[in-house]
Amino acid sequence: MAIHRASVHSIHWRCLLLLLLLTCVSTAAMKTPRLRVMRRMKDRKVGDMAGTPSPKADYNVYYYNQTLDHFNYRPESYTTFQQKYVINSNYWGGANSSAPIFVYLGDESAIDDDIRTTGFLSENAPKFNALIVFIEHRYYGKSVPFGSRDEAFRDASTLGYFSSSQALADYAEIILAIKKNLSAERSPVIVVGGSYGGMLAAWFRLKYPHIALGALASSAPILYFDDITPQDGYYSVVTKDFRDASESCYNTIRQSWSEIDRVSSEPNGLSILSKQFMTCNPITSASQLKDYLEYMYCEAAQYAFPSDDSVLKIFVAGVVSYNGNSSCYDLNASNNPSDSDEETDDGWDWQTCSEMVMPMGRGSNDTMFEAAPFDLEAFIQGCKSAYSVSPRPHWITTQFGGHDIKLILERFGSNIIFSNGLRDPYSSAGVLTSISDSLLAIYTNEGCHCLDIVQSSPDDPNWLVMQRRREIEIISDWIKQYYADLAANH
Amino acid sequence: MAIHRASVHSIHWRCLLLLLLLTCVSTAAMKTPRLRVMRRMKDRKVGDMAGTPSPKADYNVYYYNQTLDHFNYRPESYTTFQQKYVINSNYWGGANSSAPIFVYLGDESAIDDDIRTTGFLSENAPKFNALIVFIEHRYYGKSVPFGSRDEAFRDASTLGYFSSSQALADYAEIILAIKKNLSAERSPVIVVGGSYGGMLAAWFRLKYPHIALGALASSAPILYFDDITPQDGYYSVVTKDFRDASESCYNTIRQSWSEIDRVSSEPNGLSILSKQFMTCNPITSASQLKDYLEYMYCEAAQYAFPSDDSVLKIFVAGVVSYNGNSSCYDLNASNNPSDSDEETDDGWDWQTCSEMVMPMGRGSNDTMFEAAPFDLEAFIQGCKSAYSVSPRPHWITTQFGGHDIKLILERFGSNIIFSNGLRDPYSSAGVLTSISDSLLAIYTNEGCHCLDIVQSSPDDPNWLVMQRRREIEIISDWIKQYYADLAANH
Repeated sequence: MAIHRASVHSIHWRCLLLLLLLTCVSTAAMKTPRLRVMRRMKDRKVGDMAGTPSPKADYNVYYYNQTLDHFNYRPESYTTFQQKYVINSNYWGGANSSAPIFVYLGDESAIDDDIRTTGFLSENAPKFNALIVFIEHRYYGKSVPFGSRDEAFRDASTLGYFSSSQALADYAEIILAIKKNLSAERSPVIVVGGSYGGMLAAWFRLKYPHIALGALASSAPILYFDDITPQDGYYSVVTKDFRDASESCYNTIRQSWSEIDRVSSEPNGLSILSKQFMTCNPITSASQLKDYLEYMYCEAAQYAFPSDDSVLKIFVAGVVSYNGNSSCYDLNASNNPSDSDEETDDGWDWQTCSEMVMPMGRGSNDTMFEAAPFDLEAFIQGCKSAYSVSPRPHWITTQFGGHDIKLILERFGSNIIFSNGLRDPYSSAGVLTSISDSLLAIYTNEGCHCLDIVQSSPDDPNWLVMQRRREIEIISDWIKQYYADLAANH
Repeated sequence: MAIHRASVHSIHWRCLLLLLLLTCVSTAAMKTPRLRVMRRMKDRKVGDMAGTPSPKADYNVYYYNQTLDHFNYRPESYTTFQQKYVINSNYWGGANSSAPIFVYLGDESAIDDDIRTTGFLSENAPKFNALIVFIEHRYYGKSVPFGSRDEAFRDASTLGYFSSSQALADYAEIILAIKKNLSAERSPVIVVGGSYGGMLAAWFRLKYPHIALGALASSAPILYFDDITPQDGYYSVVTKDFRDASESCYNTIRQSWSEIDRVSSEPNGLSILSKQFMTCNPITSASQLKDYLEYMYCEAAQYAFPSDDSVLKIFVAGVVSYNGNSSCYDLNASNNPSDSDEETDDGWDWQTCSEMVMPMGRGSNDTMFEAAPFDLEAFIQGCKSAYSVSPRPHWITTQFGGHDIKLILERFGSNIIFSNGLRDPYSSAGVLTSISDSLLAIYTNEGCHCLDIVQSSPDDPNWLVMQRRREIEIISDWIKQYYADLAANH
């Protein structure tokens, strides 16, 4: 392919495809520029799966009377709220059968989204006679304390109970309650999660080995804290993805930023840009457009399917289901994000401003983007003005570790699969090298964010089929070993 | 030895010795009858060590600006308090030396008590060039939030932050801060604790493997929660101790309860009992005397040295240092408990009423005591009326596990020594069987509570010397392995 002269006119068609691809995703995340919301593969698959039958009929909905604060005994800590979880017992081996329980640990969205898009549990449950459970994360979906979302999100006094450690303890309580209710005390539990939920799955196995036998942590960037991973890790993978797809595309984007600046500073420049980028409303500044493009490039990298074919397919599905026949691109973040996206953004915004401080930035020459180093002080100030409390940027590594992970865990812990796809920018902070015989890294070169746990399709490429097969073989081995140990211990 | 007819007159001289032995211990614990305070060996050794030089000169005192609530982000959670820790760097290998750090995790007392009585760290530090650190537990000693002890203990609103998970997180933060300050990031950390502190040490290694390489958990009854251990475990060992010492003593005690009831119901009975038991004040009821005797038998079993010689020695040392020349026994608990004992009792009382619910009781025929089954409902009501909050009796097993410990941990976790002495009633809920090659149970038949970590003496029996030697060999192996892994990973 010929390399085009850099200009906003010449953005290569593949890049345009990627741009279009992303228009189906709500841009609500732009409202919260502090840190990127970790949107997941399954968010994108919703459109694609519009034609598949709703799995809802197979799931019974329950609510657990959850303790507001597990680690504190002030009277207020005893307040309870209703935490949603759903159970599919279609394949369940039954009470006292010791058949396994697959538990999906909810993340930064309503649990219904996860049920709709996650395939790993329901596709593998039949051969294990497994019970399937999805548990919603506190402060998302219906699992909101203080009687209403408005009240729960009022300020730091009500948001303060919204933390990863509390969420893990929630899961611990609910899983134990389910096991007791179903006389399934001896059933091995496998926890599964993706992205932030993947972190939770890995951490849950590490912190609650007496409750979960093993964890599948899909696309979990557990090393994106403190100084463990270079700050430009995420953007470097985005860059590499584009460059691998097309050197010209990469060059075009790399040079587009100054070109946008140049055009926008000309008389009538913003209106030229508005027309060229087919925006629904006039672009108001160069940085508005640049933020939008950056957002879309990142989403494309994170969620793009590997082949042009699938890109096209998703593109069509996405546009049809999200934008109808709209033929313009809405740069205005606040226009019509879905309620679900908005709730995800609000929740994640709090989480990043309290403890999930992932220092993502880039220098001036390391990526195809303009320089934007992570500025911890500015970040803290932003959080303070938003919530009146400071983030605790070192808490996650204090509580969960991360530094020298191989040294620390090669003789401690077991039964975690860290799965990644190297096209996913978050893989830059994933565990990509096996730590021990049972703390395993399973990655694919072509995969993107959380690809292994979304619903499978007959069109899935062989490497994806193989990745999933390998994962379930490993889990199967854990369960077999557990049964042997159980027999030896009783 | 002839078996005497059962009567209060005929309590065997060995029993009397044990009785006398215990008069040196404050009976403040009787104020809080809900659960026994876990007094430790080192509390008793204070008198015995009166002649040893104070180690204080070797220790520098520091205060860490500690976060009030690690798991919550309400504005109040950010409040800080000064947490005391002390460092002895006499033997320290220095910055960047990778020499180990021995950390004593404070328990239910002021840290100075621990420093004075614990020998394990200072006796072994020289050969490892180890840094020695003692960290005080929140809400004990000087490490009290809210500006004053009165305010901190005011009610559940201020006590609510007083929990084991918060304490473990405190230790995590302080250890990381010390390592950073001393450029000792690569130094392996070995945590040590006894009794409740032993539980903390074991749990710390399980929850914070990235901070502690290994743990010595001395006399840690981590299985005395929920239904894991039979409720009469503690009293059964007390009974066995007395029976092993003297069958007649055992029989005498076993039958004494009804004899006390009989005598006390006679005209002038209480004054006869007062004279016979040489109490300072008249006994007011049979149950007052019985509570006192029960308390003393338990303390004797928990802390008694193995040989009659040492019993005598302790007895003399104890009486001399605590009671002066007092020749009567004070059954009135509220008279003159030391401030330190009182603080320990107040703190532990809260802990048992929030989460450390150890169901200790006994039936009518399983021990030498009168029946006193553990009544969870009554216990909860007692806590409610004392603090207006309910205990969470299943929390410890939810958070830390305990059921099926071998099954759960034989393929998870490493580097914990569970040390016990079988004479210690708390050993009934200790880990007495090794779980794996590096989760090891090391016990002695003759040892009592926390004996292995108190200061050694030339008179120590060989089995005790051997136990300590074995423990330090194991720890030495962990450290060697760590250095090899470190070299391989960098």
